[in-house]
Amino acid sequence: MRLVTYKRPGNIGERIGALDAEGAVRDLAAVDPAVSWDNMPALIAGGAAMLERAQAAALKAPVVPNAILMAPIPRPPKNVFCVGKNYHEHAKEFAGSGFDGGAKDVVPPFPVVFTKPHTAIIAQGEPILGDLDPTAGLDYEGELAVVIGQGGRGIAHADAMKHVFGYTIVNDVTARHLQKRHSQWILGKGLDSFCPMGPAILTADEVPDPGALMVTTWVNGEQRQHAPVSDLIFDIPTLIVAISAAITLEPGDVIATGTPAGVGIGFNPPRFLAKGDVVRIEITGIGVLENTVA
Amino acid sequence: MRLVTYKRPGNIGERIGALDAEGAVRDLAAVDPAVSWDNMPALIAGGAAMLERAQAAALKAPVVPNAILMAPIPRPPKNVFCVGKNYHEHAKEFAGSGFDGGAKDVVPPFPVVFTKPHTAIIAQGEPILGDLDPTAGLDYEGELAVVIGQGGRGIAHADAMKHVFGYTIVNDVTARHLQKRHSQWILGKGLDSFCPMGPAILTADEVPDPGALMVTTWVNGEQRQHAPVSDLIFDIPTLIVAISAAITLEPGDVIATGTPAGVGIGFNPPRFLAKGDVVRIEITGIGVLENTVA
Repeated sequence: MRLVTYKRPGNIGERIGALDAEGAVRDLAAVDPAVSWDNMPALIAGGAAMLERAQAAALKAPVVPNAILMAPIPRPPKNVFCVGKNYHEHAKEFAGSGFDGGAKDVVPPFPVVFTKPHTAIIAQGEPILGDLDPTAGLDYEGELAVVIGQGGRGIAHADAMKHVFGYTIVNDVTARHLQKRHSQWILGKGLDSFCPMGPAILTADEVPDPGALMVTTWVNGEQRQHAPVSDLIFDIPTLIVAISAAITLEPGDVIATGTPAGVGIGFNPPRFLAKGDVVRIEITGIGVLENTVA
Repeated sequence: MRLVTYKRPGNIGERIGALDAEGAVRDLAAVDPAVSWDNMPALIAGGAAMLERAQAAALKAPVVPNAILMAPIPRPPKNVFCVGKNYHEHAKEFAGSGFDGGAKDVVPPFPVVFTKPHTAIIAQGEPILGDLDPTAGLDYEGELAVVIGQGGRGIAHADAMKHVFGYTIVNDVTARHLQKRHSQWILGKGLDSFCPMGPAILTADEVPDPGALMVTTWVNGEQRQHAPVSDLIFDIPTLIVAISAAITLEPGDVIATGTPAGVGIGFNPPRFLAKGDVVRIEITGIGVLENTVA
């Protein structure tokens, strides 16, 4: 199923719903009011029993009129984990761009992991605040993001996929000049609104092979990125092993797995985003995440 | 005043107290039960009125028997912000160590900012889990940490100090080989237990000049670091301006400002920490943060 977080006009607080095949939000609380459908990490922490309850409720749930989508996890337990240079062709274009100041290797020998705070997270349809980058180097990065289900530390490779609750889309929006000049990346990538996320979490039971998912990104209708998740340098189990080796992962933690080739700095000269540009990212089965630069 | 977060044996939940001059925890709730003294970021968000209330309560508050100190902010709104290479002499020793794989400059031209998740935060007296670094490169970094009071984005330099609620101590524990090989630093610095914090928050009204605070670190009683905060390359207002330029800071956010010279990799050969080593950090007026490598 596809789970979303939404609000309603004039209503305070967020609610969890199901996104149906037509894109309408279904009201789980109307069918199963004994559950407080108000916090995605809490629902995820409820494990298989809570997921089954959501699936059962979705079968009979009425449509929510005027639902406004929020990011599926507006406030993960930790900053969003993100992975840099994790597709071969993108690692090459990044190295060729000259923006990768310090790196000796085109392909990193170990996963490159950084974070974005919850204040960067915005929903499907919300504006990317391009003015927050004063250096005119705004770029997009369409990415598959993994949502952690059962938490843990020292997760074994063979068990890693059992810790995946589902998948969503993240746009790892980047201010390239800030990314370069601050050396560590949070100040170039963690800016307010620089983590569009959504529209929904596609639960893992519907994704037998995440490698088969296609990530496609368009800017103003022009296709820029198009690659299968199987092109990842460090695949999903490897990332979960690397991060959880010494950091306890929690239900609702999010790992954006990296972006394929075709970002703005991959072009010569770079094709940075400008006010009014529309970035649209689609991943098989999850849906479309579209945001406009304000 | 010095504010702490504590628990009591057998009691669930955390409480905010005052740390008196003798190091005893005072029970604010016993004097002013109308306030729920259970969440430091919420107290900080209450602004001057809540601080005055805490100060008034502390004057008459009884001692808490058997209080167990927690980190003053066990769960900040975001991952803890940390600043790398922010003292001249440390920047030199780091460059000289060969551990700074990618850097071209000894002294960074812009602040180098990374994060540690809340799962890394431990209290005064809790063990540092040295075994989580399989590469035998465990190092200490004594640091002054700033606790944000009033939040905001785009904070002006002239206003920055008004956004400081107080100060605490952070040990930016680091697995040097992991820091180097992952390029971005969270996997080498964000490990569980690698962010000892405490013992207390010294409120800003008691610190007319943070530059005069002295940071001193001992390992097994041997002094390793000793420098005034005035030696910072990027001072506190500059860091607040840099981070808040595009990231909304919130009450209770923590910024560890960087470490002076004298860390383990500053020695030739490096003097890494081993099981049983005791790292003790003292900063003027805040107190002592002491943790043993388990």
